[in-house]
Amino acid sequence: MHSQELKAAQTFMGRLAPGQDLLEALGGLCATNGVTFGLIKGIGAVKNAVIGYFDQDAGHYIENRIDHPLEIVALNANVSMRQGEPFVHAHIALGDRDGRLYGGHLLPGTTIFVFEYALTKGEGMLERKHDDTLNLDLWEV
Amino acid sequence: MHSQELKAAQTFMGRLAPGQDLLEALGGLCATNGVTFGLIKGIGAVKNAVIGYFDQDAGHYIENRIDHPLEIVALNANVSMRQGEPFVHAHIALGDRDGRLYGGHLLPGTTIFVFEYALTKGEGMLERKHDDTLNLDLWEV
Amino acid sequence: MHSQELKAAQTFMGRLAPGQDLLEALGGLCATNGVTFGLIKGIGAVKNAVIGYFDQDAGHYIENRIDHPLEIVALNANVSMRQGEPFVHAHIALGDRDGRLYGGHLLPGTTIFVFEYALTKGEGMLERKHDDTLNLDLWEV
Repeated sequence: MHSQELKAAQTFMGRLAPGQDLLEALGGLCATNGVTFGLIKGIGAVKNAVIGYFDQDAGHYIENRIDHPLEIVALNANVSMRQGEPFVHAHIALGDRDGRLYGGHLLPGTTIFVFEYALTKGEGMLERKHDDTLNLDLWEV
Repeated sequence: MHSQELKAAQTFMGRLAPGQDLLEALGGLCATNGVTFGLIKGIGAVKNAVIGYFDQDAGHYIENRIDHPLEIVALNANVSMRQGEPFVHAHIALGDRDGRLYGGHLLPGTTIFVFEYALTKGEGMLERKHDDTLNLDLWEV
Repeated sequence: MHSQELKAAQTFMGRLAPGQDLLEALGGLCATNGVTFGLIKGIGAVKNAVIGYFDQDAGHYIENRIDHPLEIVALNANVSMRQGEPFVHAHIALGDRDGRLYGGHLLPGTTIFVFEYALTKGEGMLERKHDDTLNLDLWEV
């Protein structure tokens, strides 16, 4: 089993500015803090959302767009390397006005209302490589 | 970007007693352990739930009440200072008998059945101040 | 309040091989890494899922089976001792093709498509003992 230790971990807490694209802002947070290996989690709210569902048979993501505000009930992400650049893989759970939850793979186009994060940065490295069978960029098993 | 490091972090695991108000018990857990800056997560079940959805246009929370037992699929919370006191901001995802998920911002009135937590306590400080535009108590961006 | 510190924590990140039973593979991950006290979280996707809802009146789990692929929006688990063996207690949130979320207590029979984990291993011990009132194996309060 190929696993990598997240050594010398440091955790930072803060809030991302409203109005930004959430996925892009998570990338910016990593860039600002020099994170190439780590974890991000957070709660808050979005103005709208774009979430993905991976069609395992077709080998590509389906997009679902939600064009109204939602609570961010949970965002869980990891940070690793892909094609020589830090890459954020984030999944998100979102709650609507009636408390029903929606979510999946976070895609560009989701707009921050409030996002309170905990970013854990460590030493070590995991690298995504294309898996031709699954058609996804994955860590070695 | 204004972020605060959670230094000298310690993590404690345990279970909160049944029958308590979950949000109040999270506050008590912080008080008992002297936590003013940190993170809480947990899984378990509740006897009933009161969850909030922030109406971003109106600038206030809408309450949703669920008057039957639910699994706690995920609770994610942060702890920081507000008006000189430690304050727990918690979001929760809950599953019903058919496996459907509900959730949002945890409000008073949610009753613990089982709650298994991991509490991370650190040194450092973030303080919530009222944001007049959003009508929420928020950390500085 | 009976809580246990997770001392000398180390975090490992990696991916579990596809096609395995997720709950069984989490147990294997703990065995391989000598984990008897810790936390696991992760994101990814499953080929199908079996999730439990604890009927608090009847004192037993109800099973819900979902026989199609789902995104793993959040998996949160703790690891402690039960009957002398390491035991993984995991809750899971899953998203379908339309972005709707389902979930609850992870049961055997859930098949991994992709699972990217963060495993935190620590020193210390919590032990589950049978609670006759709730009919669950629980940590001391």
